[in-house]
Amino acid sequence: MNEKVALALDLGGTNVRVVAVTESGKILSRQHSPTGDSSSDGIYDEIARLAELCRVEAGVSEFVAFGAAVPTTTIGDDGVLAHLPNIPQLEGTNIKQELGHRTNTQVVAVNDASAATLGEYWLGASKGSKNAVGITLGTGVGGGLIVDQRLYVGTGGGAGEIGHIRLVPGGRPCGCGGKGCLEQYCSATAITRSAREGGMSAATAEAVFELAESGDAAARAIFSEMGSYLGLGLSIVNNLLSPDVIVIGGGVASGWEQFFPATMASLYENSLPDRRSRVKIVRALLGDDAGVLGAAKYTFQQL
Amino acid sequence: MNEKVALALDLGGTNVRVVAVTESGKILSRQHSPTGDSSSDGIYDEIARLAELCRVEAGVSEFVAFGAAVPTTTIGDDGVLAHLPNIPQLEGTNIKQELGHRTNTQVVAVNDASAATLGEYWLGASKGSKNAVGITLGTGVGGGLIVDQRLYVGTGGGAGEIGHIRLVPGGRPCGCGGKGCLEQYCSATAITRSAREGGMSAATAEAVFELAESGDAAARAIFSEMGSYLGLGLSIVNNLLSPDVIVIGGGVASGWEQFFPATMASLYENSLPDRRSRVKIVRALLGDDAGVLGAAKYTFQQL
Repeated sequence: MNEKVALALDLGGTNVRVVAVTESGKILSRQHSPTGDSSSDGIYDEIARLAELCRVEAGVSEFVAFGAAVPTTTIGDDGVLAHLPNIPQLEGTNIKQELGHRTNTQVVAVNDASAATLGEYWLGASKGSKNAVGITLGTGVGGGLIVDQRLYVGTGGGAGEIGHIRLVPGGRPCGCGGKGCLEQYCSATAITRSAREGGMSAATAEAVFELAESGDAAARAIFSEMGSYLGLGLSIVNNLLSPDVIVIGGGVASGWEQFFPATMASLYENSLPDRRSRVKIVRALLGDDAGVLGAAKYTFQQL
Repeated sequence: MNEKVALALDLGGTNVRVVAVTESGKILSRQHSPTGDSSSDGIYDEIARLAELCRVEAGVSEFVAFGAAVPTTTIGDDGVLAHLPNIPQLEGTNIKQELGHRTNTQVVAVNDASAATLGEYWLGASKGSKNAVGITLGTGVGGGLIVDQRLYVGTGGGAGEIGHIRLVPGGRPCGCGGKGCLEQYCSATAITRSAREGGMSAATAEAVFELAESGDAAARAIFSEMGSYLGLGLSIVNNLLSPDVIVIGGGVASGWEQFFPATMASLYENSLPDRRSRVKIVRALLGDDAGVLGAAKYTFQQL
């Protein structure tokens, strides 16, 4: 095989996923395990074990590098992980050293939502555009930015934090320590919270969605309000960055039919006239592969 | 002379300024005239006359190009100017053709606030940084973005519209047709409006500033509120783009002492913890030269 092959990791709070990917984007092997609550050594050991499985299954003697998508707002050049709310036992560890030692491969780390955005840009919903924005609606809300055909990570590696745009000054408290962040109005957690505050028995965002689909007015109002906030946030991104396309992914994107009309109305109302109809809003295409593919692409670009 | 020399234009609602600039940033000639209310032909003729004066004074036989900083949110690749609220008689005209014919020079157009941001990045307050944001507080509020050491203009040429971030949904009506834009809370016009609404006799932002400096509580409150809104807007930019530095320019920046403490408090409160102290907020250094210098630099980069 002549094509370069990289390892790529998506380090999630629920699962760790490791794949072997060629430079043209073909996934040769996929492995995953629950993240669990093991120690940092336990997690890094398990990632190394999955990497070894990938090496065997892909039949690759040497990987050019190991790209790691990490759920944190700051990634030091040295590889030390800062704030990781979903995997706190890794805080302060050095992912470049820990994985580098264990796999004998150079490690490149990137924010997970940035990686997913780049994955969709490489092989998914924003392919062929010049300027693209990605937003991931899950337990939290992440984002990533493609500017002039390159992933932009900003100083400190944490650009694209759409989830922490302050939409409602003094609003709902957020895990970041602030108040009124978009994440508190547009995530799965936010939908569940709105349902609970409205006295509904639905315990998950999926359940609220099912109620809305069945015609429940209160559940529909929750999605409509969530969609409105999302459109307001996206209008801010649109006015600031004037992208060609905004890609919406994550589990909450499954509720598309229930929130999208309100999102488009709010986006249109709050965007500058020249760009309110130009920007395309589309659903992500790559699902769980977006993060590992983007981490791999970022890694190939750094070589 | 071996150095390349460009012409550069700053097309303002009050004045048109034309300069001749070397590739290293030395201004060889400066010319300006009132924009007045002449026809589009009258304005373009006057710009061409100023360009000819620059040619003579600079002793340059040929300019490599003519960079034009234009106050509009959209600049078509073809050079047709769209919405220009301050110089409506130029709407629909083709600046590349009109100036190209008259000066026999290739014309490159760029948004005026983007140009000012690039000017400050080239030779001013954000020089040497990697990621920088510029914001111009004048009659309106403009902005520009330097990402990974390059000016980012976005699709349509109008990225960086910090002035049209919707800070207050349903708030003060804005010239863009929307409501609650940052511009309506942080511009000179906004300060004057707040004074008028508060029953003050001060008719200009300068007069409100003088009152504030003399200790007037109501005038101080106006600047404090304006500074707070500005900090909220800058926190959104900071969370999205994670720049090294934000440069504040424009006439209202002269009121720095009155609004800056509130700006920093609000920026700190609303920024993600990893970047609330990292970003530097500084005053612009180049004054009226920022726009022409940035237009020239952008032009040199396009050659």
